[in-house]
Amino acid sequence: MNLVLLLPEDLVAPDRARLTGRRLAHVREVHRAAVGDDLAVGLLGGRMGRGRVLRLDDTALELSLVLDQDPPPKLPLTLVVALPRPKVLNRVVAASASLGVARLVLVNAWKVEKAYWSSPRMAPENLREQLLLGLEQAKDTVLPELRLARLFRPFVEDELPALVGGGTGLVAHPGSAQPFPAVLAAPLTLAIGPEGGWIDAEFQSLLRAGLRPLDLGPRILRTETALAALVGRLGL
Amino acid sequence: MNLVLLLPEDLVAPDRARLTGRRLAHVREVHRAAVGDDLAVGLLGGRMGRGRVLRLDDTALELSLVLDQDPPPKLPLTLVVALPRPKVLNRVVAASASLGVARLVLVNAWKVEKAYWSSPRMAPENLREQLLLGLEQAKDTVLPELRLARLFRPFVEDELPALVGGGTGLVAHPGSAQPFPAVLAAPLTLAIGPEGGWIDAEFQSLLRAGLRPLDLGPRILRTETALAALVGRLGL
Repeated sequence: MNLVLLLPEDLVAPDRARLTGRRLAHVREVHRAAVGDDLAVGLLGGRMGRGRVLRLDDTALELSLVLDQDPPPKLPLTLVVALPRPKVLNRVVAASASLGVARLVLVNAWKVEKAYWSSPRMAPENLREQLLLGLEQAKDTVLPELRLARLFRPFVEDELPALVGGGTGLVAHPGSAQPFPAVLAAPLTLAIGPEGGWIDAEFQSLLRAGLRPLDLGPRILRTETALAALVGRLGL
Repeated sequence: MNLVLLLPEDLVAPDRARLTGRRLAHVREVHRAAVGDDLAVGLLGGRMGRGRVLRLDDTALELSLVLDQDPPPKLPLTLVVALPRPKVLNRVVAASASLGVARLVLVNAWKVEKAYWSSPRMAPENLREQLLLGLEQAKDTVLPELRLARLFRPFVEDELPALVGGGTGLVAHPGSAQPFPAVLAAPLTLAIGPEGGWIDAEFQSLLRAGLRPLDLGPRILRTETALAALVGRLGL
């Protein structure tokens, strides 16, 4: 937690916050903060700055706030990711938030097991928690938009073309033998398939929605590694 | 496991392998292979191809091999990574192998806790296992060189300059306000600090060893996310 992320309900006054629970425990046990210390803080969806510790004990952390910085801008990037296994879902969601993507769409695909959609990790509270952890890691306050597209075709046919808009859309697909585009026009849209890849009908639908194929070379990366490498590759 | 990685001792003949243990269990339970199926295989440090299942039961997997492809080339890249927390060590090592880096150096730093070096995960067998898992994921057969540099200064002063050689060396450092270089000369060397960053003396040592500072922007990424994003950013 590189930033203590404050929720609106933490504010007991415009310049005063009171925290309990996970963030209190983290500040006590990991930061080992003391009264008088300054912590990096940010208000969810708002500005960032410093919080001076006024009180810290086993019931609450009280901070006096100076919020004088804007959060970093979001990347003009929509990630469309085939829903990963529950085991890696948390890391994919948190990493997407850390990297600063503006929008994350978790989409169904032929090779996504149905059971993934009913994993406890798909509960809205867990998904939100992972996004918040990603923001706390990255020092950001602005949640990416998270969308769940349980049906591939309506999302890809009816919504994806508008997301791509006049920008550059790319779909990672092995063997497509397409080099990385020399020029990228924002907004960017990047689709990453499931383990085992998109089936051909899905790949063709994504192309019809305005995405261009992108060959990532011979190596098959785990979703969270591919995602970070691709966001890095975009050079945003 | 996108590739069944064969060890020299698995070969019962030049074109025949017999596997037990983890790989047998994985092929039975995850791949759910049957006699007559072809699996993607590769010989550690050697060629890749197909293995036809001749026998598969609870004691052994026997494969008839056709090894007719070269593994993908390694990236001309040395990663110098401050030893991460044990919890993320496995992912960092496996991701480095998956991404195809030629050499991974785990180095000490002021902000690396001493206990990390004596974690059970630092056992050579575990580190090798993580590298093998990364190769199996990526479909590669060639282990990266792994070096453990328990002393920062001798490594950085005496060995790092030769690794950088006539190539491009970069050290990720927040606030250095250096844009990404327009031209990268191979071999590349990339240094990634610990959580909390390099201390100034370390940063200065890395500069003297021939690395150039690289500003990654305002977001603080977890080591494994930063690593993949940076490797992607290099566009190798």
